[in-house]
Amino acid sequence: MQVTDLYVSAPGKAILHGEHAVVHGKVALAVSLNLRTYLRLKADTFGKVCINLPNIDTFLSWDLSQLKQLVTYGKRDEVQCLDAELVRRLREFIGVSNGSLDTCSMANLSFLYLYLSLFGSGELPSLTLTVWSELPTGAGLGSSAAYSVCLAAALLCASGAIPPPLKEWEHTARWCQEELELINSWAFQGEMIIHGNPSGVDNAVGTWGGMLRFLAGKIIPLSRVPLLRILLTNTKVPRSTKVLVAGVKDKINKFPSIMVPVLDSVDAISCTCEKVLSEMTCEPITGEHYNILEELIDINQHHLNVMGVGHPALDRLCQVTLAKGLHSKLTGAGGGGCGITLLRPGAFYCAFLNDYVKSNLF
Amino acid sequence: MQVTDLYVSAPGKAILHGEHAVVHGKVALAVSLNLRTYLRLKADTFGKVCINLPNIDTFLSWDLSQLKQLVTYGKRDEVQCLDAELVRRLREFIGVSNGSLDTCSMANLSFLYLYLSLFGSGELPSLTLTVWSELPTGAGLGSSAAYSVCLAAALLCASGAIPPPLKEWEHTARWCQEELELINSWAFQGEMIIHGNPSGVDNAVGTWGGMLRFLAGKIIPLSRVPLLRILLTNTKVPRSTKVLVAGVKDKINKFPSIMVPVLDSVDAISCTCEKVLSEMTCEPITGEHYNILEELIDINQHHLNVMGVGHPALDRLCQVTLAKGLHSKLTGAGGGGCGITLLRPGAFYCAFLNDYVKSNLF
Repeated sequence: MQVTDLYVSAPGKAILHGEHAVVHGKVALAVSLNLRTYLRLKADTFGKVCINLPNIDTFLSWDLSQLKQLVTYGKRDEVQCLDAELVRRLREFIGVSNGSLDTCSMANLSFLYLYLSLFGSGELPSLTLTVWSELPTGAGLGSSAAYSVCLAAALLCASGAIPPPLKEWEHTARWCQEELELINSWAFQGEMIIHGNPSGVDNAVGTWGGMLRFLAGKIIPLSRVPLLRILLTNTKVPRSTKVLVAGVKDKINKFPSIMVPVLDSVDAISCTCEKVLSEMTCEPITGEHYNILEELIDINQHHLNVMGVGHPALDRLCQVTLAKGLHSKLTGAGGGGCGITLLRPGAFYCAFLNDYVKSNLF
Repeated sequence: MQVTDLYVSAPGKAILHGEHAVVHGKVALAVSLNLRTYLRLKADTFGKVCINLPNIDTFLSWDLSQLKQLVTYGKRDEVQCLDAELVRRLREFIGVSNGSLDTCSMANLSFLYLYLSLFGSGELPSLTLTVWSELPTGAGLGSSAAYSVCLAAALLCASGAIPPPLKEWEHTARWCQEELELINSWAFQGEMIIHGNPSGVDNAVGTWGGMLRFLAGKIIPLSRVPLLRILLTNTKVPRSTKVLVAGVKDKINKFPSIMVPVLDSVDAISCTCEKVLSEMTCEPITGEHYNILEELIDINQHHLNVMGVGHPALDRLCQVTLAKGLHSKLTGAGGGGCGITLLRPGAFYCAFLNDYVKSNLF
């Protein structure tokens, strides 16, 4: 089976507001970054599948004949639950123990899972995938989701389930809603393999781009959001999302009357932010819009400290940027990781939050 | 008229939790400090009333014959509303303009008001009052209230409205509840002259000492509270309570859905703190009691920052003390002023919060 060469890319994400509170049924706002993961699929005739992941020094190949033995059914276009038996066989095949979260192993596992699920036991195409990224791993910026979205989009194209991303005269792909949903569902399968129990926010942002509202498991892409310029700072302080989430839960259980109102306040921050961003798309953007966005950032950062997910490195970020008149908060799990700093138009910047993008895959 | 010499003292106060939120109908906890204001009343025969306030370099005297002309009625034991006409005449007499908040003028005005109200147009006693204090003025530690409580107690004794504070064999005064209420009501008159629209918390703490719960204008002395050791830090950053209170109100009006839950959370902090302190008096005090008190301090300090009443000097206090494992928050209006740091038993200390004291007047 011969496939067509293609390029595809997907953005990383940052949480603007609502991290942690979202676990307790509150609204969160996620935005796509202009830091992206890129995938190049190249057809081969060597009877092999090769994957090159230069960011994590991974260059592997498998014989198609070996891989064929791992699947017992035809190709699946439709997403079903994670095929636990296939995952088990793949873990055994590449020698990954059950508890391992090693980035390289997880990347291989999710690739092979999507490849074998989408092509099945029929004719497996010989191809080389190269994936590289501007996103750091383990920083809460959705690098694994961007990887999964690229894999899903490329392999769905290769299998013929969706059309090729680019016509000759186009610069940006315009997959329809149904096709994007198919990409997103398969990317979610990849995320499940990598993270176990992901929220689905990261792969949704990777697929749709722009800004998403997340509430009680429902993900709603927001149709109109303004361009926001964000300075992204990676504290490089390692932390465990699982431990941080559990710590917040413990604090809520210990002081419900104190903590539940804090979650309510965070919910209101997300809703107020969404309202202001929406206003910024339909009326002239003023300093007052930015004043409010900055106030919301400050308040939320205090609330996140109340939840116990701050870190001295994040406090320093807030202090250093405030000395320049800029307002910062942690983004994602906290306890280190990344912080975001809102930049006003005209200021220097290090990273963008993506504008209103219909599709971040091209 | 000859009066008996006497000494009296009253403590300053700190707000443990609930500053600002109390303005919006939430619970606040106020505690007395072991920093006190002292008053010595000495009978004279010079036909003069002298007041010495060494802390603010004020040494004044007035002829009784002059003062007599200012009142037109007999002495008043019972507290009534502030006699606006007497205040007006006194302002004119000592040459204080209506808007003036000068410490020296306010101290003289409130003294003369209480003196003339309590002795009336009858026989005015010749006496010298000397008042000195361990409390800084304008730091939110209730120095004016401690002054007013001392004045009220001393002048009520001198006028015979309440018995002398000390019997020969006693070390601490034991005025009955009714007498303390009379002292408190007159002290409140003094506070009204000095502050315009005081909450009544400061003079209540000055009168009863110990710890008070303040809710919707009702002040309830708490019968049992443990000894707490508090490091008191005066940032010496000047600020206007009025401006800070107005700023919080503006923020609540601007972001009601975000700020009202924060006030609810502060309310719960005060209630939780009261509960923990009460437990500490009836069960062995453990590290966990202190853990909770420290967590409440941290959370409330974040909330006060959310309200916008923090200050870099207070942030520094929190950082510096946290580096020593200690937890701090601002106390009172914020925006500078004083911070409190909870000390665990055995640690060094600079100032005490008073223990369960039946009466802080002796």
